Amino acid sequence: MSLPLITLTTDFGLEDTYVGVMKGIIYSINPAALPLDLTHTVAPQNVRQAAFLLSGAYRQFPPGTIHVAVVDPGVGTSRRAICLVIPEVGYLIGPDNGLFSYILYAEKERGAQLKAFELSNRAYHRPEVSRTFHGRDVFAPVAAYLSKGEPVENFGSPIPIENLVMLDELWPTVKIKDKIRTITGTVVHIDHFGNVISNIPGAMLGELTPDQRRKVRASCGYVSAKSLVETYGESKKGKLVVLVGSSGFVEIARVEGRADLFAGAEGSSLAVKLGSKFVLTVQ
Amino acid sequence: MSLPLITLTTDFGLEDTYVGVMKGIIYSINPAALPLDLTHTVAPQNVRQAAFLLSGAYRQFPPGTIHVAVVDPGVGTSRRAICLVIPEVGYLIGPDNGLFSYILYAEKERGAQLKAFELSNRAYHRPEVSRTFHGRDVFAPVAAYLSKGEPVENFGSPIPIENLVMLDELWPTVKIKDKIRTITGTVVHIDHFGNVISNIPGAMLGELTPDQRRKVRASCGYVSAKSLVETYGESKKGKLVVLVGSSGFVEIARVEGRADLFAGAEGSSLAVKLGSKFVLTVQ
Amino acid sequence: MSLPLITLTTDFGLEDTYVGVMKGIIYSINPAALPLDLTHTVAPQNVRQAAFLLSGAYRQFPPGTIHVAVVDPGVGTSRRAICLVIPEVGYLIGPDNGLFSYILYAEKERGAQLKAFELSNRAYHRPEVSRTFHGRDVFAPVAAYLSKGEPVENFGSPIPIENLVMLDELWPTVKIKDKIRTITGTVVHIDHFGNVISNIPGAMLGELTPDQRRKVRASCGYVSAKSLVETYGESKKGKLVVLVGSSGFVEIARVEGRADLFAGAEGSSLAVKLGSKFVLTVQ
Repeated sequence: MSLPLITLTTDFGLEDTYVGVMKGIIYSINPAALPLDLTHTVAPQNVRQAAFLLSGAYRQFPPGTIHVAVVDPGVGTSRRAICLVIPEVGYLIGPDNGLFSYILYAEKERGAQLKAFELSNRAYHRPEVSRTFHGRDVFAPVAAYLSKGEPVENFGSPIPIENLVMLDELWPTVKIKDKIRTITGTVVHIDHFGNVISNIPGAMLGELTPDQRRKVRASCGYVSAKSLVETYGESKKGKLVVLVGSSGFVEIARVEGRADLFAGAEGSSLAVKLGSKFVLTVQ
Repeated sequence: MSLPLITLTTDFGLEDTYVGVMKGIIYSINPAALPLDLTHTVAPQNVRQAAFLLSGAYRQFPPGTIHVAVVDPGVGTSRRAICLVIPEVGYLIGPDNGLFSYILYAEKERGAQLKAFELSNRAYHRPEVSRTFHGRDVFAPVAAYLSKGEPVENFGSPIPIENLVMLDELWPTVKIKDKIRTITGTVVHIDHFGNVISNIPGAMLGELTPDQRRKVRASCGYVSAKSLVETYGESKKGKLVVLVGSSGFVEIARVEGRADLFAGAEGSSLAVKLGSKFVLTVQ
Repeated sequence: MSLPLITLTTDFGLEDTYVGVMKGIIYSINPAALPLDLTHTVAPQNVRQAAFLLSGAYRQFPPGTIHVAVVDPGVGTSRRAICLVIPEVGYLIGPDNGLFSYILYAEKERGAQLKAFELSNRAYHRPEVSRTFHGRDVFAPVAAYLSKGEPVENFGSPIPIENLVMLDELWPTVKIKDKIRTITGTVVHIDHFGNVISNIPGAMLGELTPDQRRKVRASCGYVSAKSLVETYGESKKGKLVVLVGSSGFVEIARVEGRADLFAGAEGSSLAVKLGSKFVLTVQ
């Protein structure tokens, strides 16, 4: 038996009633559903951040889990609504705008037999679909029906996987000159602790000697750090360091502090933004 | 069968344990209850904001849903605790301090046969009722018993609807002079995206010509905007615009930004507060 | 029958997916579990704050409730993972780092027959236990199995209660000189409303005359207040006052405002931090 688990990832925040309304819709269709929040503080319309967060979480749930993601700058336009099926893993439901890019990339690498469907069958939507809130009118009801056992084929027509929207610049670029590698990625997430996380996979660095580790440089926005450490404990409180975080990506962290803020006399201000270039040099 | 859905709206925030404690009480009385958060970031003691948010959400839930709202500056005083019954819609539970004003107004307009009860029967409260936390001691247990099928009549004596507290200045005022309409309302909510939302119904503007739309002016706090647009896309990034938001009320928004903040070199500071006058002119 | 209620208290915040992942693990083991959030905004690695918040909440839940707390600076080191059993109350699960100090203290005072177990039996952990996320790999699964009825003895070997880690400076110190009592505690929590809460029990003040109440002084960080009031209503808007809060501890509050911030022209900045000394004088 598969669990009727439905995760929710949005940029709706918690100040409004939108997330609660989506859960109400889900329960009204399937009272046995188990909706749970992944996060609702994706930066407004930041598809890349949501894509990154989803890719780190989706395989941590039991098989058959339904992940609903609504970061949807194109809501009300002709962008498609989709459901992606990953065998033995689960379902992804949301707009076809690149939200599932990192997952698609990883699952293709694994050779998974993916299927995708356009959520074109209006019988599973709310009777009146608004132009602005498909989380409530399309994605929540479809997820709820799916969690009740409705076959995914019923929600609409199949789409070729190659046809799905992928984010551009999914991965960093690398240049090598005078034996110095310059890896240019993007800041894709700033976590609760103020760690500034890039889309540069730690594996990209390869094996480095202690001397090479010391010479690593990273910079983004107004923040720059040197020296690649294994754990925060290797450096002093307040220092900016480079490390491969728990999600497997290169990040800049401040030991016992936030790397994303300047702390000044007058409070603190932003030192780096999502979407900034994240430049790493390795010699 | 009606669903034991219980929504929660408070000004308790998420930094403390109060909301979790309320859910614990609910589950201990009805393990099959489905409590869900609408929002807990109502500004402290801002009854008007909660009333506005509730009015936009309460009809989006299945019939029989129980809405518990605890924004309760008068807790511990003689203000009444009430349950309001809206046939075919559901139940509203909270202090009698105006929290349900917008809903009462709308339902009276619809001609709904409303009933109200004072939650005077202590058999359904916690054995010891504190002076400060009726969310835990009165409202959560009553909601839980109601969700289990206890008839609403058992919770206490009926109150005439006309007797319920209504907020003053529920709606804006209008003055007309030299063919210029000046509509003066209030900022009732600032949403997750920094849109500044008034209590001025969009319908109040009536049909406007393109020229009239361009001449619309709105101001509140340190913020002012001109030109009534249909969608954010009509204006440039960073521009302040006036529009009728998804909730049907006039708001000031900044295209791809926040309208409620000044962004300066030293971080950002508040440009407008809840409760500020929101003045709209239409010529 | 005991309810499968599992509360969660962490410093994970809501910006990441960690809390959702923990709930996914819980549901995958016990689909009938009722996980609920106490709070996830404990200051990073602030064990004392979490210990204080837990102690105020744990007795407000039905018997048998399982409280999982993950504020875990020592994750990945040799610190123990534990389950504490409080008869007729419930279970506490988390790292053995002092998180349950206030509860242990209170329950010992009550003469409760406590039991503790090290969570050493890996059969109840996730197959691969990471070095950084025991919330997911150890604490969530153990809580879920416990909620399903697995006997607590199965999770690992018993530990003597005296052996558990206790926070130092759990309680304030008192000095008396020239008939002036100086009570020195710590700021253990700043609540949603900006009230600055100490670990000084209100009971420690004893009976004070009106004159003595007026002469009470409290200071912490850049904040100082005088006069012990019963309710906020006794003082004017904007004034800093001292009072015994709803949790029974001495706090500094600003009437209709936040005591923890300076509000300046350029926004607001922190006036006091968690962990600051909180000095109270009574003459």
